[in-house]
Amino acid sequence: MPDIEIGMGKAARPAYGLDQVSIVPSRRTRDLDDVDTGWEIDAFSFAAPIMASGMDSVVSPTTAVALGELGSAGPLNLEGLWTRHDDPDAILARVAVLPEDEAWAELRQAYAAPVRPELIRDRVKEIRGAGVVSCGSVTPHRVEALADAIVAAELDLLVIQGTVVSAEHVTKGDPDPLNLKTFVRRLDLPVIVGGCSSYRAALHLMRTGAAGILVGVGEGSSSSTRRVLGLGVPQATAIADARAARMRHLDETGVYVHLVADGGIRTGGDIAKAIALGADAVMAGAAFAAATEAPGRGWHWGQAAVHADLPRGTRAPVAQVGTLAEVLHGPATDDTGSMNLVGALRRTMALTGYASTKELQKAELVVQG
Amino acid sequence: MPDIEIGMGKAARPAYGLDQVSIVPSRRTRDLDDVDTGWEIDAFSFAAPIMASGMDSVVSPTTAVALGELGSAGPLNLEGLWTRHDDPDAILARVAVLPEDEAWAELRQAYAAPVRPELIRDRVKEIRGAGVVSCGSVTPHRVEALADAIVAAELDLLVIQGTVVSAEHVTKGDPDPLNLKTFVRRLDLPVIVGGCSSYRAALHLMRTGAAGILVGVGEGSSSSTRRVLGLGVPQATAIADARAARMRHLDETGVYVHLVADGGIRTGGDIAKAIALGADAVMAGAAFAAATEAPGRGWHWGQAAVHADLPRGTRAPVAQVGTLAEVLHGPATDDTGSMNLVGALRRTMALTGYASTKELQKAELVVQG
Amino acid sequence: MPDIEIGMGKAARPAYGLDQVSIVPSRRTRDLDDVDTGWEIDAFSFAAPIMASGMDSVVSPTTAVALGELGSAGPLNLEGLWTRHDDPDAILARVAVLPEDEAWAELRQAYAAPVRPELIRDRVKEIRGAGVVSCGSVTPHRVEALADAIVAAELDLLVIQGTVVSAEHVTKGDPDPLNLKTFVRRLDLPVIVGGCSSYRAALHLMRTGAAGILVGVGEGSSSSTRRVLGLGVPQATAIADARAARMRHLDETGVYVHLVADGGIRTGGDIAKAIALGADAVMAGAAFAAATEAPGRGWHWGQAAVHADLPRGTRAPVAQVGTLAEVLHGPATDDTGSMNLVGALRRTMALTGYASTKELQKAELVVQG
Amino acid sequence: MPDIEIGMGKAARPAYGLDQVSIVPSRRTRDLDDVDTGWEIDAFSFAAPIMASGMDSVVSPTTAVALGELGSAGPLNLEGLWTRHDDPDAILARVAVLPEDEAWAELRQAYAAPVRPELIRDRVKEIRGAGVVSCGSVTPHRVEALADAIVAAELDLLVIQGTVVSAEHVTKGDPDPLNLKTFVRRLDLPVIVGGCSSYRAALHLMRTGAAGILVGVGEGSSSSTRRVLGLGVPQATAIADARAARMRHLDETGVYVHLVADGGIRTGGDIAKAIALGADAVMAGAAFAAATEAPGRGWHWGQAAVHADLPRGTRAPVAQVGTLAEVLHGPATDDTGSMNLVGALRRTMALTGYASTKELQKAELVVQG
Repeated sequence: MPDIEIGMGKAARPAYGLDQVSIVPSRRTRDLDDVDTGWEIDAFSFAAPIMASGMDSVVSPTTAVALGELGSAGPLNLEGLWTRHDDPDAILARVAVLPEDEAWAELRQAYAAPVRPELIRDRVKEIRGAGVVSCGSVTPHRVEALADAIVAAELDLLVIQGTVVSAEHVTKGDPDPLNLKTFVRRLDLPVIVGGCSSYRAALHLMRTGAAGILVGVGEGSSSSTRRVLGLGVPQATAIADARAARMRHLDETGVYVHLVADGGIRTGGDIAKAIALGADAVMAGAAFAAATEAPGRGWHWGQAAVHADLPRGTRAPVAQVGTLAEVLHGPATDDTGSMNLVGALRRTMALTGYASTKELQKAELVVQG
Repeated sequence: MPDIEIGMGKAARPAYGLDQVSIVPSRRTRDLDDVDTGWEIDAFSFAAPIMASGMDSVVSPTTAVALGELGSAGPLNLEGLWTRHDDPDAILARVAVLPEDEAWAELRQAYAAPVRPELIRDRVKEIRGAGVVSCGSVTPHRVEALADAIVAAELDLLVIQGTVVSAEHVTKGDPDPLNLKTFVRRLDLPVIVGGCSSYRAALHLMRTGAAGILVGVGEGSSSSTRRVLGLGVPQATAIADARAARMRHLDETGVYVHLVADGGIRTGGDIAKAIALGADAVMAGAAFAAATEAPGRGWHWGQAAVHADLPRGTRAPVAQVGTLAEVLHGPATDDTGSMNLVGALRRTMALTGYASTKELQKAELVVQG
Repeated sequence: MPDIEIGMGKAARPAYGLDQVSIVPSRRTRDLDDVDTGWEIDAFSFAAPIMASGMDSVVSPTTAVALGELGSAGPLNLEGLWTRHDDPDAILARVAVLPEDEAWAELRQAYAAPVRPELIRDRVKEIRGAGVVSCGSVTPHRVEALADAIVAAELDLLVIQGTVVSAEHVTKGDPDPLNLKTFVRRLDLPVIVGGCSSYRAALHLMRTGAAGILVGVGEGSSSSTRRVLGLGVPQATAIADARAARMRHLDETGVYVHLVADGGIRTGGDIAKAIALGADAVMAGAAFAAATEAPGRGWHWGQAAVHADLPRGTRAPVAQVGTLAEVLHGPATDDTGSMNLVGALRRTMALTGYASTKELQKAELVVQG
Repeated sequence: MPDIEIGMGKAARPAYGLDQVSIVPSRRTRDLDDVDTGWEIDAFSFAAPIMASGMDSVVSPTTAVALGELGSAGPLNLEGLWTRHDDPDAILARVAVLPEDEAWAELRQAYAAPVRPELIRDRVKEIRGAGVVSCGSVTPHRVEALADAIVAAELDLLVIQGTVVSAEHVTKGDPDPLNLKTFVRRLDLPVIVGGCSSYRAALHLMRTGAAGILVGVGEGSSSSTRRVLGLGVPQATAIADARAARMRHLDETGVYVHLVADGGIRTGGDIAKAIALGADAVMAGAAFAAATEAPGRGWHWGQAAVHADLPRGTRAPVAQVGTLAEVLHGPATDDTGSMNLVGALRRTMALTGYASTKELQKAELVVQG
């Protein structure tokens, strides 16, 4: 790809956001009923290629079960309120109605409590017990410490997630730092790991043996990584680069690693565009925080928002638009694109003539010139 | 055309909107009186290459006649309120003054009534009886069911219109789906069909035997197709691509198929630019919904806005700027460009030295760099 | 210059506005006192390469004299209020305080009065009598009819100005239309003619024998040509194209025709950029309408704003920032760039190391990427 | 670098701002503790590559000492209030609470007092006496006159700073103008000189023997150079061009001249991006004016804002976000990126895998397409 010279001493690649692209209808159309939006990763099948983000304002054990029953999935944050407190719902209910300053203080205090392995076990059991795929998320920083508890809990699918996750973490102080390449293979459960945002970083994460990778750095609506850290790649380019890494990894190993686009996914249109760019599924936060059942109760935040020294992101109010079922399957009550996400994806596929999401990945795109 | 690499695994074509281009005056100017804005399609002649959109807030039998008398045309929506109700004007008058929620409810109920073939006959008869070209629009979904009634009504010009219309609709459930390639040729009246937004889709629609195609997907001001579905092509590029399809189709068959740019046409400047890009005529919605005679009475909506599961577009208030005659022929009372559309087109042609709209198609353009 | 394909059937040249470019300092700087901002055209010298627009809200005989004494110039609109009325100042004073509707009505009525040749004579005499260069503007439409009066008035410098002026006006009705190529040469006074906005149009206007051409279509702040008519070229490109025409014309004829950039000139920075792009001088409207002496008394409009059928532009309030002397030579009282235009140009030249405006035309530019 | 044709007669280089670029994480990550943000120039070491601007609203002797103790530095404006008045703090306190007009008047009067060499001596002594690197700034216009006082004061590091500073100032009136090439070498202390914004201007400033150059023209938030003068280069390009000059100068002379990016630096992300583009350090104004200790007491201005004839920039209120220590080292209390600048830079380096700022200069960038 030709570089752009920023100046005589430094070049940069051009990168594009989801807002800049749109899907060109093909010369065919299809019946809505003939379209399959399903997604399969490892041994698991989902009716919709849409995951909820592992954030305390989005996923509780209850909503995890509800999402599973609706054909979606959402990892429970295994370092969040649910594994630190016996009754986080009481905390969440209180925080939702407190004045802003007190809400922050209460949240900071709540996140200061220790993560309790037995709560990991109980929460996962609650989700698995309902008959849906149990999914949980941890940060690379803690994944080793919590690995035993996670395996013991018989979690189905693990998400290892950070702002930026690399396959090669360099450290001087620790004689035995986390090596994802050996760690992921040693684990007895499928892993989705990320974020990443370049061909090379994606390729190396694929080589850890992960079933899927999270694509996206600095793109989430609840994040300010771009502003605070100067980091990030616009999401359309991040996905398309990771797609190239998927092709190479498949060519080298015969293994197809799934791309889960994480960040900047708000509407049905965003989902369709992410898939057309190469994603196999997407992860969405704010879209699900807007559900009436969401544990955030009209508020949305990532755990980085309560970081003691360098908060990235904030705790923002979010309008509650309808139930989780309505967010995923409609009916939508307005034309903002934030409800009936699956129905919108289905209609896009029908109008562009693609019968499966794998076919939709072939769609022609235009980019705003 | 060189593609842009969105990332290493996916490319996209750059595309441009009408707002990004403008017309460069040539080295000639012309008298206003020496300029001809006329448009001829099939056996019909219009003084202005401007159609009103087939929307219930824009075209009633009365305004269809008025448009015809003013040198324009507007298809009556043959699946809208006028073919479902004996007295839609009463409904429209009531809806215009109801509180928002009740207005929506009333509209949804009104669109739930069945389409009555005898009303198609009566409405078309009313328009034809006034001595103007009768024009009606239907969706691809219903066109077969209504074809007999339409032909029996002796409609002059049929518009088959959907968000995206393809020449090849694939369906599993129906052993005999609509095949536009045979259907259009079988009909005994000229057809304009669309929307479409690519060279290939346009070419295949032309091959159905249509007299004209509607160009534009996701560009209308009353639509949110782009946001909800992720679909669409910026209009300047959509027109220029369809122009290439027209050239090829003319070369292969000797038949000149007209391009009607539909979506994003608000001002006289938009009309001139659409023609300079290659359009033979344009279709405009909001510009006509702003007329005092418009049946929407200060409101504008497309039928997709009342979709039960996935509304695309909404019902928006629109300022009434003047009569239909003033919208088309002036005098304009402000400088927004939304009145005296024909006069503006005429002046653009005079100032750029082009004597006919066919000549204006040759105009030099610049695109904002 | 490589074209951009808007779509497969139409290309366009990229074009840039003044806002998109800026001047790169060279490796030299200069003392403010060593910089010469002077401009010479035909037999006339001006201390500043800045003309006021020939608009009734900007130039009266009084301000024309004041501008001349300040080293600038402003053409009196010879088809405006001053040549239609004995006491336009009374009208302007009244209009300035009327409610909006009544102001429009009064202005329309005032512009409906006939142009009186003896007033052309008197107004020009008043300006010349003060010892400054007398300058007046007319439209191409009326220039022939008024030519005798203009020559008789011994006007020094004539501006023939319209939205678009071409060297070749085509007309069927009139057996003897205006031919600028013969008309300009026949006149006994230097002419500046325009607007134009392309290499070819500029070249043909130069070949009429004009001393200067006005460059710019659809760029003025008081105009809505772009929106209403779809016409125009972003000003930086229009100037750079006309510069190429100037080179060719100079090469072919040995005659240097001046470029006066008209449209989009608001600040000292705009003036410097226009010159760096190739302009010899600029024409500014709103910047001078903001002077306390301006006849518009806090309002600004072009004559196209009162067009009966198709107004382009409106009558807008403009904040009065200071005297004409302050607008041109300061001191500036804020940092908006709209005052001390000559001082700003001088400082730019000092900081970039260019001693004359002719040298500033060589300045290196960057364009926002 | 390929030029863009603005028009047929003038080309321009494309240029990019800091907002348009972002840093791509590499395939490695690093521990926060393994990252070194230090900066060394001449004989001086700083824990952070971040200087405060030499503006009276930012740097007083007290804050200069505080900055030094926090690992940063800030030049005292040696032509500002501190070297003109015995008790500028009283003036600053009064100005901060005066109505706007009176504040301006008081500031103008305060800057009209003469610069007193003995105050230069005392202020520098106060800073040096606290054991931190003493740093002061002067304009090229006065540097010769003040040189003896500066050297006598035993200043550690001198910043010669103007809107645009060139190595070759041309003057007719003065038989012996300032020649930076001889002047800088003659001085007995290290000099940082600028601003500049092109390869050639940077290279010539390096050849004066300066230890560092300030890169940036027209980019500061408190400046309106771009609007008033039309001058400037977007900062990402200015840095990348100066980087090329640094390479050439190093190749020719073996001397590494530091680049200090000055202008447009507001957040931790801006700092990281400036370094990735090639800067060795940055200079920030508004970010430090927002500290509770800042002498501006909630107001921020550059000395050009009180220029008598042509003010560039204004006196703007600035929200006080925290102490200097918090601005530099946190904790940050929000996610705007304006606090904990060093912590943010450290985290960016950790997440992108770069152990030193010199390594961060190698980071891959993307530019918004």
